[in-house]
Amino acid sequence: MAQQISPLNVGVLGATGTVGQRFLVLLASHPYLRVHAIGASPRSVGLAYPKAVKWKQTTPIPKAYRDLNVSACEPGAFAGCKIIFSGLDADVAGDIELAFRDAGFAVFSNAKNYRRAPLVPLVVPLVNPDHLAIVRQQQQELKKPGFIVTNANCSTTGLVVPLAALERAFGPIDTVLVTTLQAISGAGYPGVPSLDIMDNVVPFIGGEEEKMEWETKKILGSLASTTTGFALRDEMRVSATCTRVPVIDGHTECVSVRFARRPAPDIAAVRAALSAYTCDAQTLGCPSAPVQAIEVHDAEDRPQPRLDRESQAGAAVSVGRIRTCPVLDIKFVLLVNNVCLGAATSSIINAEVACAQGFIA
Amino acid sequence: MAQQISPLNVGVLGATGTVGQRFLVLLASHPYLRVHAIGASPRSVGLAYPKAVKWKQTTPIPKAYRDLNVSACEPGAFAGCKIIFSGLDADVAGDIELAFRDAGFAVFSNAKNYRRAPLVPLVVPLVNPDHLAIVRQQQQELKKPGFIVTNANCSTTGLVVPLAALERAFGPIDTVLVTTLQAISGAGYPGVPSLDIMDNVVPFIGGEEEKMEWETKKILGSLASTTTGFALRDEMRVSATCTRVPVIDGHTECVSVRFARRPAPDIAAVRAALSAYTCDAQTLGCPSAPVQAIEVHDAEDRPQPRLDRESQAGAAVSVGRIRTCPVLDIKFVLLVNNVCLGAATSSIINAEVACAQGFIA
Amino acid sequence: MAQQISPLNVGVLGATGTVGQRFLVLLASHPYLRVHAIGASPRSVGLAYPKAVKWKQTTPIPKAYRDLNVSACEPGAFAGCKIIFSGLDADVAGDIELAFRDAGFAVFSNAKNYRRAPLVPLVVPLVNPDHLAIVRQQQQELKKPGFIVTNANCSTTGLVVPLAALERAFGPIDTVLVTTLQAISGAGYPGVPSLDIMDNVVPFIGGEEEKMEWETKKILGSLASTTTGFALRDEMRVSATCTRVPVIDGHTECVSVRFARRPAPDIAAVRAALSAYTCDAQTLGCPSAPVQAIEVHDAEDRPQPRLDRESQAGAAVSVGRIRTCPVLDIKFVLLVNNVCLGAATSSIINAEVACAQGFIA
Amino acid sequence: MAQQISPLNVGVLGATGTVGQRFLVLLASHPYLRVHAIGASPRSVGLAYPKAVKWKQTTPIPKAYRDLNVSACEPGAFAGCKIIFSGLDADVAGDIELAFRDAGFAVFSNAKNYRRAPLVPLVVPLVNPDHLAIVRQQQQELKKPGFIVTNANCSTTGLVVPLAALERAFGPIDTVLVTTLQAISGAGYPGVPSLDIMDNVVPFIGGEEEKMEWETKKILGSLASTTTGFALRDEMRVSATCTRVPVIDGHTECVSVRFARRPAPDIAAVRAALSAYTCDAQTLGCPSAPVQAIEVHDAEDRPQPRLDRESQAGAAVSVGRIRTCPVLDIKFVLLVNNVCLGAATSSIINAEVACAQGFIA
Repeated sequence: MAQQISPLNVGVLGATGTVGQRFLVLLASHPYLRVHAIGASPRSVGLAYPKAVKWKQTTPIPKAYRDLNVSACEPGAFAGCKIIFSGLDADVAGDIELAFRDAGFAVFSNAKNYRRAPLVPLVVPLVNPDHLAIVRQQQQELKKPGFIVTNANCSTTGLVVPLAALERAFGPIDTVLVTTLQAISGAGYPGVPSLDIMDNVVPFIGGEEEKMEWETKKILGSLASTTTGFALRDEMRVSATCTRVPVIDGHTECVSVRFARRPAPDIAAVRAALSAYTCDAQTLGCPSAPVQAIEVHDAEDRPQPRLDRESQAGAAVSVGRIRTCPVLDIKFVLLVNNVCLGAATSSIINAEVACAQGFIA
Repeated sequence: MAQQISPLNVGVLGATGTVGQRFLVLLASHPYLRVHAIGASPRSVGLAYPKAVKWKQTTPIPKAYRDLNVSACEPGAFAGCKIIFSGLDADVAGDIELAFRDAGFAVFSNAKNYRRAPLVPLVVPLVNPDHLAIVRQQQQELKKPGFIVTNANCSTTGLVVPLAALERAFGPIDTVLVTTLQAISGAGYPGVPSLDIMDNVVPFIGGEEEKMEWETKKILGSLASTTTGFALRDEMRVSATCTRVPVIDGHTECVSVRFARRPAPDIAAVRAALSAYTCDAQTLGCPSAPVQAIEVHDAEDRPQPRLDRESQAGAAVSVGRIRTCPVLDIKFVLLVNNVCLGAATSSIINAEVACAQGFIA
Repeated sequence: MAQQISPLNVGVLGATGTVGQRFLVLLASHPYLRVHAIGASPRSVGLAYPKAVKWKQTTPIPKAYRDLNVSACEPGAFAGCKIIFSGLDADVAGDIELAFRDAGFAVFSNAKNYRRAPLVPLVVPLVNPDHLAIVRQQQQELKKPGFIVTNANCSTTGLVVPLAALERAFGPIDTVLVTTLQAISGAGYPGVPSLDIMDNVVPFIGGEEEKMEWETKKILGSLASTTTGFALRDEMRVSATCTRVPVIDGHTECVSVRFARRPAPDIAAVRAALSAYTCDAQTLGCPSAPVQAIEVHDAEDRPQPRLDRESQAGAAVSVGRIRTCPVLDIKFVLLVNNVCLGAATSSIINAEVACAQGFIA
Repeated sequence: MAQQISPLNVGVLGATGTVGQRFLVLLASHPYLRVHAIGASPRSVGLAYPKAVKWKQTTPIPKAYRDLNVSACEPGAFAGCKIIFSGLDADVAGDIELAFRDAGFAVFSNAKNYRRAPLVPLVVPLVNPDHLAIVRQQQQELKKPGFIVTNANCSTTGLVVPLAALERAFGPIDTVLVTTLQAISGAGYPGVPSLDIMDNVVPFIGGEEEKMEWETKKILGSLASTTTGFALRDEMRVSATCTRVPVIDGHTECVSVRFARRPAPDIAAVRAALSAYTCDAQTLGCPSAPVQAIEVHDAEDRPQPRLDRESQAGAAVSVGRIRTCPVLDIKFVLLVNNVCLGAATSSIINAEVACAQGFIA
């Protein structure tokens, strides 16, 4: 059951960017998080939000933001906020997020900068919200109340949800081979030039394969017993190939996995385990968590980005085509909404979990 | 060196369809094959070709065909032709191709109907033109001079070329895992509805994965010593996932392979072997064979369908992103032009090989 | 103020088609219209709806329809329904809709079959709901309570809304020149082959230009004083060019108009008149009518289909780029959601108006 | 008859850009123009061309350029060149082109900077190559042998070809209303972000409508009898609406025109006049001129960018759907390949005309 949570003021950094716009849309209808301040780059500071932003969402700018002025991304401008959501680009996120943490804010970041930091949790809310506990170590080490929580790369996010469901049911997966077909919105705005992607596939996304291979091992790993952070799943072999396709939103991933246990579970058991999977974000009653964490499709040609990406407001992972793999054990196709669960929605659910579990003062 | 070959009359079946149109474009400038008769379904019979066809090529109908009348797909209408190219749909190809073979024609077919027949060679001309030799057994068994040669599914065609190159250099590959991103033209016309594929991926193509997994084992197999046809590579494990993406022409395939030999060759050796690969179709001087069978790309984001599919008139396979696979040995990305090497071009090179080797009377 | 209307049972014909699916989605959350029966072609009859339909909407099949069986399109199967929405294709709509009307149903049709019938109103609900009054003449002539109301072609629908607003403010428009850029969904499913429209424009849509030119004159015409139906606006010159573009939903139209009155109104006046326009469907409190009938955009690059088509659930028309035309008086760009206001939404608002005005027994 | 022209060295400015790449592709196979030097921005200077360029053409970099080094865009680096082709962006073209002219080069420019200059000809080679004669006035005024010739905006280029054909046959056109559907390649690289144009139309291209409306009047105007340059067609009313659509190459334009002469010519006469049109660039034997200046299509759904843009190497204009306009006299649809005739090809034919007519020393 969800507890009642009192309204909380939040700030959004990078509010004019693609991820920032999505944060604002999602937070406009949030039951208890209230956008109190928004930050962007110097050229936007002081402008009313509609003047500062090149709005690219398919819904109009929510009324609440029409008179909000853009602040500098400095902690002083965010007094009164308990939580900071960061949609900053990686090239500026490092220093700014640190400054907010040092100033005592709970920072929930989409940027990649601190994902590999030993005491920073890398949390996919449908998978490892228990990793949030490590923020106590951040606070102790710094002797300050602030902390940083990161969420994962959008492609990693989609992958680890069914992997976690399968590991819970059948024990360790030792091998994962994944090929992604990623949407253009994953590259932000202006992002991918149309001349590069119309009638085309670009079989390369800089740094993406490394992120998928590494982040998966941290997210599916465990809190170490010591104060040194996480025990990574170093024994797991993960091979990722990442491609860009002419799709606006929604990353498709073709996945083959091998279980450590012999014999491997059969297809029916795998299907049942995926469908039955629930996570703490759901049991804690987080309002942005999906009702069904994994939507299993039985139609032979699903999931498809255009038809399935908006299901449950893009907060779940869709899985279909579960079948035997002639090389590993099983294979399937998954779809994750890269701009929702793959980005802002994860940050928000992470914050909701942190609120529900008392990490926010 | 290429021998001089005298002009030969050929017929094209299914001449109004997508593959048939491509045959006609390619043959219009062929050095010695001359289109003498064309066949299509009953509603087209008797019409001048331009009246019968819904032409969808990006070049105009070649002049040679503007006054050619469409015949019925019956052997009697193709007297004077030595070779028959079939671009017929699978639902009619079975009976018609058989009738032409029984009437003594050399039939080169794109249809899937006879690919699994024991005495019918399944020939990717850059890989196994030596399999053509089995047509002698077809002729003996039937006591007739006609025979059928098939070429492979378009996705299989792209895959087996680099696999053959690697096996020649490094011995058997025991494991292949491939994910395809296939163009819409692979489905013919009208084919894929635009509402199904714009801003979308369809992660399923009926029968395609089975074709890739099975055909690969026949093509990379060998002529059996007996008269029973082919020794398939049954010990090879092949896992294929096939998807459709919004690309007009050109199938992209993400491939991981494992070699039997330990240690596996390194990346540099693999790159060199792919680049050095040559095939009989080249040494025989077949005019439609590519100069470079495999084009190796070193740019990190190539090959790409829009930029690379027309290279060498679509008769080669492009390979890039050769790198270590954390699960199998190596992985790479390939591109095959599905309407050229993946279809009509293969049939034509197969016929050229057959001419050069004396299989055509 | 909206009056309170009691729940009413409705039937949907052509329920498995593109328009039929849209009807079902819209009606699933309607405040007083309840889907009681659905009809489709013989091969679907008797099947549960999810078995019968190839669902192509971006939201799942609403729960209410999961156990609903498909009926034959015969009046007997729709007993208990007061209103029939027809999403039938034109090739079958003629006889079936007539049968339902003769059986006493109020039929609201998307099909083109009866749009030109003298006593059948062609109603764009944001423009000429007063034309509904002619159904009394239908009933009198037939001495039956049933009647047929049609809504307009999707492109016509978008055009006439701003034309009506301008005529109300400034008097007759005597000349209209329009070029459309129409979405693929306007052609239904399977509709436009992807090979025809990807990376392409098709500058022709069969019958569309004639429909735009003729329907505009009926919709903007008036009920004749006699019983002979409508006085068309035959003096108005309308020139339409219709093209298909690679857009999923949302027709863009580039419009130039000339007013009879001299001098013509200036841009500011035109902008104000469009923005201020309201219609009876709004004042009657029809629940599916938009709050703002015409959304005027001031950004120089709007409206755009992807960004603006979902505004107000696709029930309004967006207009932008209002400027002087060097040839006629003014020009502007409009956007209409062809699957919403351009199709099912119009039928539903028409039915709501008919309910509010007492045309439904 | 074409005269024999001796090989001539040329230079290309902006050689790494979209237009520059196209110049290089076209010139690689030119019968007498030889690329001798190439210029680009400072960061490319000194690099071998393949290192400097992000090559986006569908054919590989021609061999001739693989070892060519990039020079600074300064006249001193282009000694030995008689002709300079400029594919420079407008923000730098102004000063650089002037410097080359002052240094005595014949500059053929795609940039917009000097199109409105009184003594600079704005030449669409299929329309007004006679305007080249004004370069004598440039030379006299400057007392230098150098001159600048510009070609028109890509959309204007497509429009004026059929207008010129119609005026030659039927006398003055007094009114033109055109709506364009322009390809993304018209915006260069990176150009249009994919997020802005996939599944979308952008009904605005900055400055484009003004260019079409103004340039048409200069191109269809005449050399003034005095030394003051051109007599513009100021009495002609031209109204342009320009939109961007998801098409890679090829601008479609929907055109309505009114003739001064009454009665207006009928459709058959218009068709015949367009088809019969020939221009000086053809009679002079310019090697890059099309054989057929205007390709008239009779199929009701042509021309289409994907199917027709490569016809005659993109050097002609395709026209179809010629029919009566209920508002003006006639209307039709045209297609121009914006990267060929709409850009580099026009510059090259202009240079060919200049060579043939003795303007190049």
